[in-house]
Amino acid sequence: MSASRFTYLGPEGTFTEAALRTLPEAATRELVPMVSVPAVLDSVRSGEAAGALVPIENSVEGGVTATLDELALGAPLMIYREVLLPIAFALLVRPGTRLADIKTVTGHPVAQPQVRRWLAAHLPDAVWESSASNADGARQVQEGRVDGAFAGEFAASVYGLEPLVSDIHDAENAETRFVLVGRPARPAAPTGADKTSVVIWLGDDHPGALMELLQEYAVRGVNLLRIESRPTGEGIGRYCFSVDCEGHITDRRVGEALMGLKRVCPRVRFLGSYPRAGLSPADVQQLRPGTSDADFTEASDWLTRSLDGRA
Amino acid sequence: MSASRFTYLGPEGTFTEAALRTLPEAATRELVPMVSVPAVLDSVRSGEAAGALVPIENSVEGGVTATLDELALGAPLMIYREVLLPIAFALLVRPGTRLADIKTVTGHPVAQPQVRRWLAAHLPDAVWESSASNADGARQVQEGRVDGAFAGEFAASVYGLEPLVSDIHDAENAETRFVLVGRPARPAAPTGADKTSVVIWLGDDHPGALMELLQEYAVRGVNLLRIESRPTGEGIGRYCFSVDCEGHITDRRVGEALMGLKRVCPRVRFLGSYPRAGLSPADVQQLRPGTSDADFTEASDWLTRSLDGRA
Amino acid sequence: MSASRFTYLGPEGTFTEAALRTLPEAATRELVPMVSVPAVLDSVRSGEAAGALVPIENSVEGGVTATLDELALGAPLMIYREVLLPIAFALLVRPGTRLADIKTVTGHPVAQPQVRRWLAAHLPDAVWESSASNADGARQVQEGRVDGAFAGEFAASVYGLEPLVSDIHDAENAETRFVLVGRPARPAAPTGADKTSVVIWLGDDHPGALMELLQEYAVRGVNLLRIESRPTGEGIGRYCFSVDCEGHITDRRVGEALMGLKRVCPRVRFLGSYPRAGLSPADVQQLRPGTSDADFTEASDWLTRSLDGRA
Amino acid sequence: MSASRFTYLGPEGTFTEAALRTLPEAATRELVPMVSVPAVLDSVRSGEAAGALVPIENSVEGGVTATLDELALGAPLMIYREVLLPIAFALLVRPGTRLADIKTVTGHPVAQPQVRRWLAAHLPDAVWESSASNADGARQVQEGRVDGAFAGEFAASVYGLEPLVSDIHDAENAETRFVLVGRPARPAAPTGADKTSVVIWLGDDHPGALMELLQEYAVRGVNLLRIESRPTGEGIGRYCFSVDCEGHITDRRVGEALMGLKRVCPRVRFLGSYPRAGLSPADVQQLRPGTSDADFTEASDWLTRSLDGRA
Repeated sequence: MSASRFTYLGPEGTFTEAALRTLPEAATRELVPMVSVPAVLDSVRSGEAAGALVPIENSVEGGVTATLDELALGAPLMIYREVLLPIAFALLVRPGTRLADIKTVTGHPVAQPQVRRWLAAHLPDAVWESSASNADGARQVQEGRVDGAFAGEFAASVYGLEPLVSDIHDAENAETRFVLVGRPARPAAPTGADKTSVVIWLGDDHPGALMELLQEYAVRGVNLLRIESRPTGEGIGRYCFSVDCEGHITDRRVGEALMGLKRVCPRVRFLGSYPRAGLSPADVQQLRPGTSDADFTEASDWLTRSLDGRA
Repeated sequence: MSASRFTYLGPEGTFTEAALRTLPEAATRELVPMVSVPAVLDSVRSGEAAGALVPIENSVEGGVTATLDELALGAPLMIYREVLLPIAFALLVRPGTRLADIKTVTGHPVAQPQVRRWLAAHLPDAVWESSASNADGARQVQEGRVDGAFAGEFAASVYGLEPLVSDIHDAENAETRFVLVGRPARPAAPTGADKTSVVIWLGDDHPGALMELLQEYAVRGVNLLRIESRPTGEGIGRYCFSVDCEGHITDRRVGEALMGLKRVCPRVRFLGSYPRAGLSPADVQQLRPGTSDADFTEASDWLTRSLDGRA
Repeated sequence: MSASRFTYLGPEGTFTEAALRTLPEAATRELVPMVSVPAVLDSVRSGEAAGALVPIENSVEGGVTATLDELALGAPLMIYREVLLPIAFALLVRPGTRLADIKTVTGHPVAQPQVRRWLAAHLPDAVWESSASNADGARQVQEGRVDGAFAGEFAASVYGLEPLVSDIHDAENAETRFVLVGRPARPAAPTGADKTSVVIWLGDDHPGALMELLQEYAVRGVNLLRIESRPTGEGIGRYCFSVDCEGHITDRRVGEALMGLKRVCPRVRFLGSYPRAGLSPADVQQLRPGTSDADFTEASDWLTRSLDGRA
Repeated sequence: MSASRFTYLGPEGTFTEAALRTLPEAATRELVPMVSVPAVLDSVRSGEAAGALVPIENSVEGGVTATLDELALGAPLMIYREVLLPIAFALLVRPGTRLADIKTVTGHPVAQPQVRRWLAAHLPDAVWESSASNADGARQVQEGRVDGAFAGEFAASVYGLEPLVSDIHDAENAETRFVLVGRPARPAAPTGADKTSVVIWLGDDHPGALMELLQEYAVRGVNLLRIESRPTGEGIGRYCFSVDCEGHITDRRVGEALMGLKRVCPRVRFLGSYPRAGLSPADVQQLRPGTSDADFTEASDWLTRSLDGRA
């Protein structure tokens, strides 16, 4: 049944699967790997799957452009959850392999910059060959075509390998952010520690257009968490912006900022309001004075009284 | 009957009376001069008068501080109309007086800088003595105590004088702006060429507070027409701001800007929305794209659809 | 000798004289009262006086427009010092007069709002008649034409009167700010607690022009202390702005902000950099990071290195 | 001799080589392909090559992250030229192959989204397999392992293939921007149509930090051309920004903006000022009034006069 199926960027044994399994709502689902981000997202659009998990951002490699562009330009989808997963690689080998035996290593191209320094220090002569995914690399080791694969430690058992070295990551705090995507519907209720994602197209090329966009947020005291420019496909110099801000679309300050963007920009796509991963309401930065829902209500009442001559 | 009485800053024969008589709504009223701006405004507060006309700004002398401070700090009143009156003085004399006969001249202190150059050119030796009002100066000429009075030409007949010279004004385009004030009530309906007046107190002394205030207008595309700082009376360095902007409180962009000010500033007093004098809707500067009521409605509908997953 | 003469807004016995006498540089000067702000300032322009003290701002009444307009529009002058004087009135009477004897009181028109509440409480039936200055009111009491005069307590001895009641001021913290003005020359050296005054004309009427002006200060971390709009004399709606900011023209951040204003606005008049009255360098608000002279020098060195390919 | 060698992102037959050959300064150089962006850039850092051409941005795929990150984080390099190349693919086949014969196609992964629609329309059943580069794909066709390769038409002769279909590009105006990079040195002289590139790190996480950054440009009238966030590698939520603006570092407005960024941000890296590809000085957007070098000089002279009391 599609309603009980979640898809994810496969194959089995990837970090994406590991991230998906951290979600309680995934516990009772059928989890189906798919070969590409577009394939994953299309399975949701077509109704084959109720939801899908895809990576959207990596703290070393940056935005996952396939995901960003599908969400911006493809048939509409919405984000309902995010997952933050620390990224550490294990060097997976066939049982019995020693470090000195390793002549060739593999992994997904985005894994390479994250283990480059480790390789230079510990396996300076090993030859790197990219694989289609970290899990695919593990399979190549299983098949004896390569000596070692960088992948999540959890992939070892899937492919009958063992982790020779664990917890490899050149960068401190390497993390990947994944989003759980579904067909557009009513966003989840606010939790007090929420995030709202949109894609915004700038209008004409006038200088300062980006600043005007940011001011729609700033004047309502809404903090930005991420802004990423993406080409619109209409030529060099034409961009849209993928923007995450603090707060939920039902927060008055966020709603007013979004309406401001909608009026000022030729196109805005709402991508969802959802709980911020790893953040409880107590950790959220304090609101700027005058931007709470109560402040909005009070100001609205005052305007009504002013319109009646009773302010 | 108080309902039919309008008061104004007297005495009879002042520019304020002339301005009041340009208002159709004054045609059938009892028009009563009073001795000071506070007295005029108190007559409205107490219910003795239905409305009152007072000067609020002069293009040579600047803001009329008594009016600004009464509107900001006194018991609440609202502005319902404004009148712009070109200011030109006549030199009023007793019949038969020639220019060469004039040794002493008089007028209200604010008239002096507006005729100084004319005096230097035509009556360099005449001695100036200030009078309590231009009309009072005319009375002094009538009584023979002074030789000439600078006043509105219309005051001549009231005091049995004649205009020896007309249309005296050092500055080109000298104008005074008057406002018709009443007790707080529902503002007049928008005309398409309106103005909205408020008084705004800045909160703590943080640098940039004034810019934040202006941004509440700017981000909604609401143009400022006038901003004037006034002391709050709490010591040097503490100010409130008297601000006029384009548009009517029922215009969505203006309403949202006012609510923004209300949230950000410790105190805002709404002084009214009223037709701009001497300006037809056709003359109003074009709205910035995205700031019309239709744009607000469209953005609001979009937000509602987004909340329902139908955007 | 003109070099040793200071003029001030007279007559003798006014608060202006009291303020002037607080300045060490006035101790050995000939101090000459004059009848009006223009007369005082012209005495400096003509070389008759080396300096002149005039009031510029009152915490109850606001800006002294005669001073502001002379400094903005008259032949150039510069401000070299400011004096802050707490304003408290004494009720001066002829010796022997009791409160119950007082039927008429006088004082300068700007004194009236500052003693209004006291009058209502203690002399509700006394008739107020304005005088040309507080000192002039004292003279009228001396001559027996009025029963009491509100003036500085120091004026009592000058006119043979005695203070019946002292320390009268409706507003807490009532203060007047005076400036010592001279012909344009090199500003005094910075003290670490300085103020810089300019007059700025806005160009065309485009909305947001005022915000652009403020941004020239804000982007360099220069805090505003006062901004006051004044009519340019070209008709309602045309203003220039009298602006005080923290810092000295030789501070790099202030100099760069002034040059920014000069480029963006059709006209800027520099009115001087001078020590802030009543403020030691220790009391000055801390600089925003990146705005000290050292920061400017470091950035300038970096730019030079970048131009040489050595950054 | 290294001085005569230019390296580029290979292999031979790529768009990068085609772009490099459009540069007059490449005409007499030895042009050497290298296997990766880091390898290309390291050849310049080590002195092996005098310059190197790498892609930096594609109008369909966005920023080339390897290039952006090497320029931001690697040993310092500078940009001296940019090249804009329209991207159109040819479907290269072994001589005699017809469209109906094609079962498998290849190309670089970034080529795929640029030909996806064409494939769906003309070869809906062909299987795509990614190759390491477009040129490498051509080689695979040459070797008979794949039936068709998407590559630049110019690659056909290198590999003994022929273009079966030309000018394939899903997006209108598909372009790639390349930059010619060298060791840091004095930038080329301004041409009147220049661009300046920097990388900027935001300091603490305070909301509005990005707006402050943009204001350093905006207040000096410097237009932004591109802004792209990149992770700093310190964890999700930590970004630096790669920013291109109009103008040359020797333009006063640009120099002042850069110094402002240097003061406000913890780190700024200057990446070069160079001629804008495909733009003559006549096409450059007109300067905002008050931002020309002459305006800066005039304002600087005025400040000097003000400091001397001669303004």
